[in-house]
Amino acid sequence: MDQLTWLDKLLFRLEAQRACLGWAVGEIAGRPGVVFELGLGHGRTYDHLRKHLPDRDIYVFDREVDCIADCTPPDDRLVMGDIVDTLPSMAQRFRGKVVLAHADMGTYDDTENLTRGAVLSRNLPALLAPGAIVLSDLLPLYLDGATPLPLPAGARQGRYFIYKTGRTPAARTRSLAAPSRPQRNDASSRPSR
Amino acid sequence: MDQLTWLDKLLFRLEAQRACLGWAVGEIAGRPGVVFELGLGHGRTYDHLRKHLPDRDIYVFDREVDCIADCTPPDDRLVMGDIVDTLPSMAQRFRGKVVLAHADMGTYDDTENLTRGAVLSRNLPALLAPGAIVLSDLLPLYLDGATPLPLPAGARQGRYFIYKTGRTPAARTRSLAAPSRPQRNDASSRPSR
Repeated sequence: MDQLTWLDKLLFRLEAQRACLGWAVGEIAGRPGVVFELGLGHGRTYDHLRKHLPDRDIYVFDREVDCIADCTPPDDRLVMGDIVDTLPSMAQRFRGKVVLAHADMGTYDDTENLTRGAVLSRNLPALLAPGAIVLSDLLPLYLDGATPLPLPAGARQGRYFIYKTGRTPAARTRSLAAPSRPQRNDASSRPSR
Repeated sequence: MDQLTWLDKLLFRLEAQRACLGWAVGEIAGRPGVVFELGLGHGRTYDHLRKHLPDRDIYVFDREVDCIADCTPPDDRLVMGDIVDTLPSMAQRFRGKVVLAHADMGTYDDTENLTRGAVLSRNLPALLAPGAIVLSDLLPLYLDGATPLPLPAGARQGRYFIYKTGRTPAARTRSLAAPSRPQRNDASSRPSR
């Protein structure tokens, strides 16, 4: 049987998510900055991040809090509302200070996913620190100054997307000038859920 | 960090689920009988079962249909209601005819889980065919005539539970007389969700 089942799809997505988060935790070690968790959902990846990054300030964005009870973020780290509004509202305060942004916001609605992807693509670049990592379960994003990277071991291609900003402002300019990379994730393989 | 996160727990549970289902599909090959899917949920494991067992009649039990749209079972295979009522109601029709029963019914409520486990333990044994497999994400079940088995490769212990009835009535009597096995799953390690 070649066709993936819904069980396969969710399992492969979680495998990719866990592999990407684990890789990102190592990648940002020693770099200052806060973490943005875009989409709380059940709170599972927030729980993963807070346990693996106990010393980071993690800001969690969602329209509602409907998570596993013990995964509720503290009030002063919760940014409630639609990211169309909330992400731009943070631009001043966190300009260049976000060292890891994880977007776990995909829905079954492709149009809605495109809208959310566009909001991230428009607003994230100004927030990112040098050497920052962006992880996304959405369609490939287009982040000025960030380069798509291949997924780490343990993550099947097409289930998640990784981007990284240059480590210095100079490097960021270079990556802007040459945005294409051979290992770019295939835009045609959407993350399945 | 030793402590499992909620992401780890769900991932490990799905890994165990997929490994157990794959193993069970091979185990029942060539044996007549129907499949009981106890708990539809999102329909992911039902989708997995129907794609891997295209020639089996799969009966799906749940209180409601709230699954991914394309995972909706056909009306004549849906048994709607509480298993407290629906499982006994099938006793006559399917006595000794169920070759695979998969119970994916665990909740976050331990008391509710105990109640459901008791309903399964009381009602499943009469339904099972010789050589039948029972997979459960609940607390260990106590199934007359069935023996707990260790999990297959790829499934972490304590995330799922497997039982198998004897291949003949005589063997069933023997396993009743000697119910303990060295590889019995550890009752203290509950599946985490």
